[in-house]
Amino acid sequence: MSLLVVGSIALDTIETPFGKREYILGGSASFICLTSSYFTKDIRMVGIVGYDFPKGEIDFFRSKGIDTSGIEISPIEKTFHWYGKYHDDMNTRDSIVTELNAFEKFNPIIPENFRDSDFICIGNVDPRIQKSIILQIKSPKIIMMDTMNFWIEGKLNELLDTLKFANILVINDSEVKLLTKDSNIISGGRKIFELGPEIIIIKKGEHGAILMTKEEIFTVPAIPLERIVDPTGAGDTFAGGLMGWLHRTKDLSFENLKLAVVMGTVMASIAVEDYSIDNLRNVEKEEINKRINKLHKISNFNRIELN
Amino acid sequence: MSLLVVGSIALDTIETPFGKREYILGGSASFICLTSSYFTKDIRMVGIVGYDFPKGEIDFFRSKGIDTSGIEISPIEKTFHWYGKYHDDMNTRDSIVTELNAFEKFNPIIPENFRDSDFICIGNVDPRIQKSIILQIKSPKIIMMDTMNFWIEGKLNELLDTLKFANILVINDSEVKLLTKDSNIISGGRKIFELGPEIIIIKKGEHGAILMTKEEIFTVPAIPLERIVDPTGAGDTFAGGLMGWLHRTKDLSFENLKLAVVMGTVMASIAVEDYSIDNLRNVEKEEINKRINKLHKISNFNRIELN
Repeated sequence: MSLLVVGSIALDTIETPFGKREYILGGSASFICLTSSYFTKDIRMVGIVGYDFPKGEIDFFRSKGIDTSGIEISPIEKTFHWYGKYHDDMNTRDSIVTELNAFEKFNPIIPENFRDSDFICIGNVDPRIQKSIILQIKSPKIIMMDTMNFWIEGKLNELLDTLKFANILVINDSEVKLLTKDSNIISGGRKIFELGPEIIIIKKGEHGAILMTKEEIFTVPAIPLERIVDPTGAGDTFAGGLMGWLHRTKDLSFENLKLAVVMGTVMASIAVEDYSIDNLRNVEKEEINKRINKLHKISNFNRIELN
Repeated sequence: MSLLVVGSIALDTIETPFGKREYILGGSASFICLTSSYFTKDIRMVGIVGYDFPKGEIDFFRSKGIDTSGIEISPIEKTFHWYGKYHDDMNTRDSIVTELNAFEKFNPIIPENFRDSDFICIGNVDPRIQKSIILQIKSPKIIMMDTMNFWIEGKLNELLDTLKFANILVINDSEVKLLTKDSNIISGGRKIFELGPEIIIIKKGEHGAILMTKEEIFTVPAIPLERIVDPTGAGDTFAGGLMGWLHRTKDLSFENLKLAVVMGTVMASIAVEDYSIDNLRNVEKEEINKRINKLHKISNFNRIELN
């Protein structure tokens, strides 16, 4: 059974205090697919690129065992291009240029041979498109989706309509507040259960993430890093580690959801240490295990009882 | 051997989305002493109040085993009064009124019989006063101090001079950035080791705290709370749990420092669920143990290896 990933594939121009890189690989589907490939096989990628997209990058995805036959190549449009400039603290950024190009009319027909996928991972796109994707899948087992403030503010009804289908929502802390009109992300998170998803994962950037089900809660810190070169795609990398792990293990127990969040955290810490997907291109198992150990060490303590 | 606590004792007026309370007990020494009393005995409190300070509150501290003979009562001035108004998200607040009153000339002579204290906990006051306090102690074993942006911006040289004496610095994340001119709190935290303290504890409010030594790092999340009534004193309560635990155990190993941070986190979660020190007045061991368990459950996971 397969993991279907649908999202953007982009060429980004990124400016950070460490320098500027132009037209480097970006987009949610790129980060999610590549990251999940370190945990599982049989990944199917759906997206659209322009005629200018480097063929070598598609070959690269294929070399990771990703089925790229769902990538449409527009013969007349260029690839989605985003130019972002990060501020000194890396927590805020300005969008300098957003050229949707081929991505503007993205409304994918899922290839017939992809429709039996059981794990579905849909990046942050228009909620109407997210719903259209979901309805094309024959019998999805787990649907994870992402969203952002742009859709919460601009297409709330469509988003609420789509959320009913989602099992897992991955969302930023500020977006929880925006979506639920609750200034407390824990009580806000609980309100999201009423909208459809039974698993909520709240991303807090450098402060880690919170995993919530109706019954339980788990927090994971970000791995402390002294040098963050490019945070672009950290959230998608997190989602890729998460879904890659769930697809590998097929285990939705809370204990295993915790590990999925751990894998997302570990992979995101790798991604942000270089531009684009560069640090994710060849990740050794040893590196992943080293960071799992580090995360365990910094967050676990021996329970004691006061007497 | 004793735990000496020096800091402010105040009457606060607090406005939060839950309501307004006037002239309720506040001040760093109040929160630190009361909190540490749940972990250790032989606590010595030094501070100043005005003639209007309720005698019942001093009796209350005494009932907790705290030696209050170091509290000076001004016969001519009122007690330090701070009026703070919290915004809806509870993360930001405005100071509406700050009347220093008796606290304005606070420059304590440590009572002779307090000078053999070995654990010293100095709240956020003028760094020159912090240094004067430290120099009065005969042979301190552990000195913990707090500070704030006001002193970093206004009395940096004095602060740097005092920091040389501190073993443990408790500081907010934004203050780390301000003090070290580093936008990354991990590399910023490391720079503080060069200023004196060998143990840095970075408080991140709802995002928990980070404990750093030169060799190791530990993160603890805040206990997720759906209802935060009054965050005033959360940082001091954290410091009280931390120092109370260290004084109880006399163990400065990293494993035990982790537990000290856990105790601070647990106590802070209790404090913020009601105004002032109200929720700290009578804390049962069972409640502390319940929250230690909760914190353990939400932050610990079983390490695995990817193979």
